[in-house]
Amino acid sequence: MNRIRMESLENKVMTAEAASMLIKDGMTVATSGFTPSGYPKSVPLALAKRAEEGEKIGLTLVTGASVGDELDGAWARAGILKRRFPYQTNASSRNGINDGSVSYQDMHLSHVPQFIEYGFLGNIDVAIIEALAITEEGGIIPTTSVGISPQAVSEADMVIVEINTSQSMALEGVHDIYTTKKPPFRQPIPITHAGDRVGTTFIPCDPEKIAAIVFSDITDKVRPLGAIDEDSKKISGHIIKFLENEVNEGRLPNNLLPLQSGVGSVANAVLGGLLDSDFENLTCYTEVIQDSMFDLIDAGKVSVASGTSFTPSEEGLIRLNENMEHYAKHCILRPMEISNHPEVARRLGVIAMNTAIEFDIYGHVNSTNIMGSRMMNGLGGSGDFTRNAYISIFTTVSTAKNGDISSIVPFVSHVDHTEHDVEVFVTEQGLADVRGLSPRERARCIIENCAHPDYKDMLFDYLERAEAGKYSHEPHIMDESHSWHHRFLETGSMR
Amino acid sequence: MNRIRMESLENKVMTAEAASMLIKDGMTVATSGFTPSGYPKSVPLALAKRAEEGEKIGLTLVTGASVGDELDGAWARAGILKRRFPYQTNASSRNGINDGSVSYQDMHLSHVPQFIEYGFLGNIDVAIIEALAITEEGGIIPTTSVGISPQAVSEADMVIVEINTSQSMALEGVHDIYTTKKPPFRQPIPITHAGDRVGTTFIPCDPEKIAAIVFSDITDKVRPLGAIDEDSKKISGHIIKFLENEVNEGRLPNNLLPLQSGVGSVANAVLGGLLDSDFENLTCYTEVIQDSMFDLIDAGKVSVASGTSFTPSEEGLIRLNENMEHYAKHCILRPMEISNHPEVARRLGVIAMNTAIEFDIYGHVNSTNIMGSRMMNGLGGSGDFTRNAYISIFTTVSTAKNGDISSIVPFVSHVDHTEHDVEVFVTEQGLADVRGLSPRERARCIIENCAHPDYKDMLFDYLERAEAGKYSHEPHIMDESHSWHHRFLETGSMR
Repeated sequence: MNRIRMESLENKVMTAEAASMLIKDGMTVATSGFTPSGYPKSVPLALAKRAEEGEKIGLTLVTGASVGDELDGAWARAGILKRRFPYQTNASSRNGINDGSVSYQDMHLSHVPQFIEYGFLGNIDVAIIEALAITEEGGIIPTTSVGISPQAVSEADMVIVEINTSQSMALEGVHDIYTTKKPPFRQPIPITHAGDRVGTTFIPCDPEKIAAIVFSDITDKVRPLGAIDEDSKKISGHIIKFLENEVNEGRLPNNLLPLQSGVGSVANAVLGGLLDSDFENLTCYTEVIQDSMFDLIDAGKVSVASGTSFTPSEEGLIRLNENMEHYAKHCILRPMEISNHPEVARRLGVIAMNTAIEFDIYGHVNSTNIMGSRMMNGLGGSGDFTRNAYISIFTTVSTAKNGDISSIVPFVSHVDHTEHDVEVFVTEQGLADVRGLSPRERARCIIENCAHPDYKDMLFDYLERAEAGKYSHEPHIMDESHSWHHRFLETGSMR
Repeated sequence: MNRIRMESLENKVMTAEAASMLIKDGMTVATSGFTPSGYPKSVPLALAKRAEEGEKIGLTLVTGASVGDELDGAWARAGILKRRFPYQTNASSRNGINDGSVSYQDMHLSHVPQFIEYGFLGNIDVAIIEALAITEEGGIIPTTSVGISPQAVSEADMVIVEINTSQSMALEGVHDIYTTKKPPFRQPIPITHAGDRVGTTFIPCDPEKIAAIVFSDITDKVRPLGAIDEDSKKISGHIIKFLENEVNEGRLPNNLLPLQSGVGSVANAVLGGLLDSDFENLTCYTEVIQDSMFDLIDAGKVSVASGTSFTPSEEGLIRLNENMEHYAKHCILRPMEISNHPEVARRLGVIAMNTAIEFDIYGHVNSTNIMGSRMMNGLGGSGDFTRNAYISIFTTVSTAKNGDISSIVPFVSHVDHTEHDVEVFVTEQGLADVRGLSPRERARCIIENCAHPDYKDMLFDYLERAEAGKYSHEPHIMDESHSWHHRFLETGSMR
């Protein structure tokens, strides 16, 4: 299989070390990658080696979302990572963010592509894009994710292409690359069903901008998925019962509406629960296509899954690679601009299911900062989908740290989604449907249905004492609002 | 001028008292109206009279946004108002919300039309729609606002039309009524410029549903606008200088992008400042068309203004009525679903300018609850525009209550817009452009540029002590986060 189909580009092939020399201290680098899928690996590792050998290199890194350890991890440990947009999940980059050595802006993912184009993140000096191949016209065929690659390519001064020979050639054709113009020239995005194909199978690229082509065979560093535990099963069960009731009440079609689901084990379990449900002919319009989606496709439950990346487990990656032609018939990988676009999410009416760190009695959600200050991963696309969903669901286990933390608190320590954004809250304890409820009604519904029994009385106590105050719309006690978090930080327990 | 152009409907004319008898205790009523413009008046007053005379009537009221005193005020005082969606500004309804007698859900305005259609707010028993006239087909021609009227008409079991003869007949043709289908049948909204007309000039209505037609001549109870003070002028000046610089840097076109501006005196002043600027051929895609917009149209600065209501002052109303044919050429009134739609706001790339009660050092905004618990008005459309803007600006005066309240605080007492949603903060002190900044950088930028000098040291003191803690991404001190609000509630001052 010819990987470089435009002959004039063959002289751009070089080693990762040589390509890395194009990247200078102080630059802003935008790369492919979304979750540990489809990110460049060889050039970042070569750059990290230079820094470890003493060269001063400090960079700004912009990606679609998280990327693998060869990029976020190696760069953070080598001291290269100075500024980071818009999401990460790597232990080393997280440490850098929380010790203050990495400046991190946690962003709505749908904002990133347009902020790059608007110039709000400054000049993009270099793009590094993992590719399957380069087409006859110089177009770049992505691998296991798309993310911000189209904007990185169009806005960067130069492009380094990292052709990854470990990726299945059956990925060719799975991508659907469509981008919007900047205002005032932007047009409607012509997607009306999750499975619509509206673009090209490659990322258009001016061949003159391709400054280097590197070959690599390092595989995506996918992460293991936790086993599906009892709590996740209960959460999944509550959601499926709720969805069944919505269908019975005539508020949802029999085959629901396109499902969006966050990343990780609980999200995977929630989707997994659909396997044993009576739902059929489902569609997904989401960011990441995880293992449970493969199960749903194999079972004939899901006809089409649209996302911006394949995010399998280690076993899932093998399964995906061995059956890529099969899955490619049911899957579409789109640019993050499109997978997360408010316009499309609102039009399709996605059912958004995302995971919270904590939520409060009035329905505000913390997705990012533990105890207010400590960044976990980031916001990701949760806001893009939550705000624009047909119905928005947040899940969490009701306690953490062996019961010392209640995930339902008087006032969340950081707000990523407001009381105006979420309709349904779910823990293993139960489900709170807060549509149409005032804040005080919401509080009772959430405490009754979602809080762990160990914390219910404490939550009601806060609510009732707050209600004894002067103003009764959304009563709070300002010197106790974050007292549970303070107590945990002081004593190791919210109790 | 014939007000009822469908002959078979003439026998539906009755008194407001008779029409009010169609409304029974426990019903949900959805009405026209957005700001004190275009809301029904006679039927609500007749209903209030019945309640005041001892009849037990408790209702749920759904409107576009705030409405005039004949509806929110009279119903709150008569004890009719039990549940209220999604916004209000009336002293009596606000008192009811804050004393706990009215259950209020404060919503994103763009969510309301679809939540009505989805059945999330329950059955809509009666719609009351203020109209100029009824067309030959039974279509309803709105008056000075559109709001949720299309959905109220389509979803209600019966419709009461209140023909208001005080409204200028020159309003006919100013409306552009376009609605979307529910998912999975929703299509792209074909608007690509603020001035595009894509619908009908009337609200389609099954004539069989029209249960009563009432004539009224009560005028809109418009509100006076505060004089433009020095602080508002300074805020306006900072914004215009910023926009000029964005044009110079090539990040905005010469004629900017469609302007969105919140309601009220500061918003009016900000737009007013454009009169003396060099900007020309501006467009507006917003909710409310206020007095300053008439000035900009008259000066030839604004070519088209799209909104969902005319919201003039008392003098503005006279001016509007006397020159309606002139303003109708430059203005379009759309359903709130379209004026506030994320799809259109994001596509057009609006410049969103909204007013905060307070914002915090990390860039979270409180638009609704004073000291965390006391509802002022509501969220309105600020979230619809802010999240989807090309660039989002929030303004506030840096102090309130003669300096006893700082509008910049360590942690806002209620979060309506998150750090992920806003790019620019402005007070009379200056402007903070936080694009691309990490939370701690943002804090310094906001304190330096926006805080009142009396509070700067206190804010830096909080920030620096928080930074001394263990986690440095977005450092907070959990037992001091709301201490400023607590201090104000205890002592009457944040100092």
